[in-house]
Amino acid sequence: MVVSYEVEVSPGLLDPANGALADAGAGVPPVRSRRLVVVDANVHHRYGVRLSKYFNARGIEHAFCVIDAHERAKTMDSVFEVVSSMDRFGLARRQEPVIAVGGGVLTDVVGLATSLYRRSTPYVKVPTTLIGMVDAGIGAKTGVNFERHKNRLGSYHPSLVALIDPEFLATLSTRHIRNGFAEVLKIALIKDRHLLDLLAEHGSRLIAERLQPADGPGTGPIAGEVLRRAIHGMLQELQPNLWEHQLKRLVDYGHSFSPAMEMEALPELLHGEAVSVDMALTTLIAHHRGLVSAADVKYIWRVMDQLDLPRWHPVCTPDLLARALDDTVRHRDGRQLLPLPVGVGSACFVDDVSRSELARACAELQQLSWARSGTGRSGAASAAVGGGGHG
Amino acid sequence: MVVSYEVEVSPGLLDPANGALADAGAGVPPVRSRRLVVVDANVHHRYGVRLSKYFNARGIEHAFCVIDAHERAKTMDSVFEVVSSMDRFGLARRQEPVIAVGGGVLTDVVGLATSLYRRSTPYVKVPTTLIGMVDAGIGAKTGVNFERHKNRLGSYHPSLVALIDPEFLATLSTRHIRNGFAEVLKIALIKDRHLLDLLAEHGSRLIAERLQPADGPGTGPIAGEVLRRAIHGMLQELQPNLWEHQLKRLVDYGHSFSPAMEMEALPELLHGEAVSVDMALTTLIAHHRGLVSAADVKYIWRVMDQLDLPRWHPVCTPDLLARALDDTVRHRDGRQLLPLPVGVGSACFVDDVSRSELARACAELQQLSWARSGTGRSGAASAAVGGGGHG
Repeated sequence: MVVSYEVEVSPGLLDPANGALADAGAGVPPVRSRRLVVVDANVHHRYGVRLSKYFNARGIEHAFCVIDAHERAKTMDSVFEVVSSMDRFGLARRQEPVIAVGGGVLTDVVGLATSLYRRSTPYVKVPTTLIGMVDAGIGAKTGVNFERHKNRLGSYHPSLVALIDPEFLATLSTRHIRNGFAEVLKIALIKDRHLLDLLAEHGSRLIAERLQPADGPGTGPIAGEVLRRAIHGMLQELQPNLWEHQLKRLVDYGHSFSPAMEMEALPELLHGEAVSVDMALTTLIAHHRGLVSAADVKYIWRVMDQLDLPRWHPVCTPDLLARALDDTVRHRDGRQLLPLPVGVGSACFVDDVSRSELARACAELQQLSWARSGTGRSGAASAAVGGGGHG
Repeated sequence: MVVSYEVEVSPGLLDPANGALADAGAGVPPVRSRRLVVVDANVHHRYGVRLSKYFNARGIEHAFCVIDAHERAKTMDSVFEVVSSMDRFGLARRQEPVIAVGGGVLTDVVGLATSLYRRSTPYVKVPTTLIGMVDAGIGAKTGVNFERHKNRLGSYHPSLVALIDPEFLATLSTRHIRNGFAEVLKIALIKDRHLLDLLAEHGSRLIAERLQPADGPGTGPIAGEVLRRAIHGMLQELQPNLWEHQLKRLVDYGHSFSPAMEMEALPELLHGEAVSVDMALTTLIAHHRGLVSAADVKYIWRVMDQLDLPRWHPVCTPDLLARALDDTVRHRDGRQLLPLPVGVGSACFVDDVSRSELARACAELQQLSWARSGTGRSGAASAAVGGGGHG
């Protein structure tokens, strides 16, 4: 079976003159003009009218299914909501791709619903958050949480196409922009030193500008390069291993301890924030093993500061980390297969991280965090926000 | 991606000397000796002790998850039960295949649970009913019902291997044996005239004997040939189209109207009984189109009588059939793609069955059924029984 899916950067996606969204998965010639649009509640609030105008202008009958998508609603109940709306819409099995518009939670939920519906129906992803554009929105994985286990239920079900329009970032909250930069940072740390240098130099400004240029729509040249490198790096890793037959995955960097932290802190830590704490932890472990020099650790901390990403959180305790590692070992079939950075821009896998290494790194992160803030600041913003992030 | 799965007939499966079940999916050499066994409640009642003895004798640590599997319990809640038991067991992701022991409902539910768990974990099917051995147990499809829609949610997730031991049929109720023969009859009607002749001659006796030989374990020569031909015919159709990219499927014969009837009559009609009514209906439609001669119709009725399978049920009304066809059209992407028999042992696809054809065939079946029984007998047994059928 050959599977292909596309990731297409398409600025001005909601401009009626742009056919990308209307034509996505429509076949040649297009068979029917009906679309079910599943959209995050925040995104619908901001973009619902434009979405309707777009489909009307293109002569496409459509209905909305509005989902309040956030990490706590990343459940089978949300999947059922989408499935019921597919039934009400009377969706044909293969020729009316569902359009998913929202952040990573929304596209993961719609991905699973379409994967299960009649054992597989097509869908199109329109990620509206930075984390969606560089991570959740461009892979093949779908998933929901189950009994406090992160993504315990899911499938591999790539969308026909992921349409990326950076203009959506203009209305994204700063915190959700930073959240996405954690996944950009991951790609930089494991395989792209130049990307790391870009983040070190421009990270803070890119966040303030939400990757939008001062002088009009689209992205500025640096923002464009950062996005392209992050997406390209991710796809390079995913493409040969879509079904994860290979459990040695570089892109699991930052994702060994973070699922347990994220679930434990729910809803306080966003996904990227938990990933950032995980990366800080494993940076220190790698440092103590002589894999990352003191200078490189300092450089990584500098970039994390540029991006205002946390390095510690109160749920990050030796006990939680030990439990997290146990579950990660089950997930990696009896082995740790833990990606550790080697210098910056490179990584390796190890199988022998001990509880005492975890405890030591954890204690150091806590001290660093206290020293940095001087006020007991946890390193993560504490406001709970909706998953779409378009406040 | 290449996918392979095996169907293996292995008599004496629970004999500790038979390594088939212990070694299924264990890898070479076997990695660990732990198994989660998900088993239908009726089957556990009859075979639980032997299953335990088997795994103990082979030195395999194991736990049972007992599921009360029947059509009304073919839901996501049952899937969640299995998922929770996998979590409690601490299942490794790829090296501890779940063992599913039961009828089609049980293997469909476990198939979906393992498909979703960590986005895919391996499993082994041990079908204990005839319908499991010739149909549900040997395909790649998993599924549960949702809001009264048959198999609305599911996936394609073949087991590593399906182990078939006809001895399980010795304790199956007669009604469940007949239920399985409906799927055998389907294969005969669409592609195997010789199999139909075997059913015409031996059907009644094979049911009475539960496909067991008078003189010991295993199957007699005719029973063995019937099983082999049914399984072989099914696999021939499934194998080139595992993911149903092709929606023209001969094995959909009997499955165009039956899902709606089965759901409407729940729990009164077993799956095979609904399939039988569907086949009677489409036999008449084909006859009126000149595709099946009067003599062949008579022959088909004779075989259905041999197998004591129903040709009508009170839920079979023109209105329900019209709604069923509407949903089938959505399932087949805007076309009827309705398999109709051509003579016996062959079939074609049509796209233009009208409501009046449905109504006419329906009325005739009702009359035939009344004439046959003289007592208003519905043609289907009315007792509701557990899905495993091992009463």
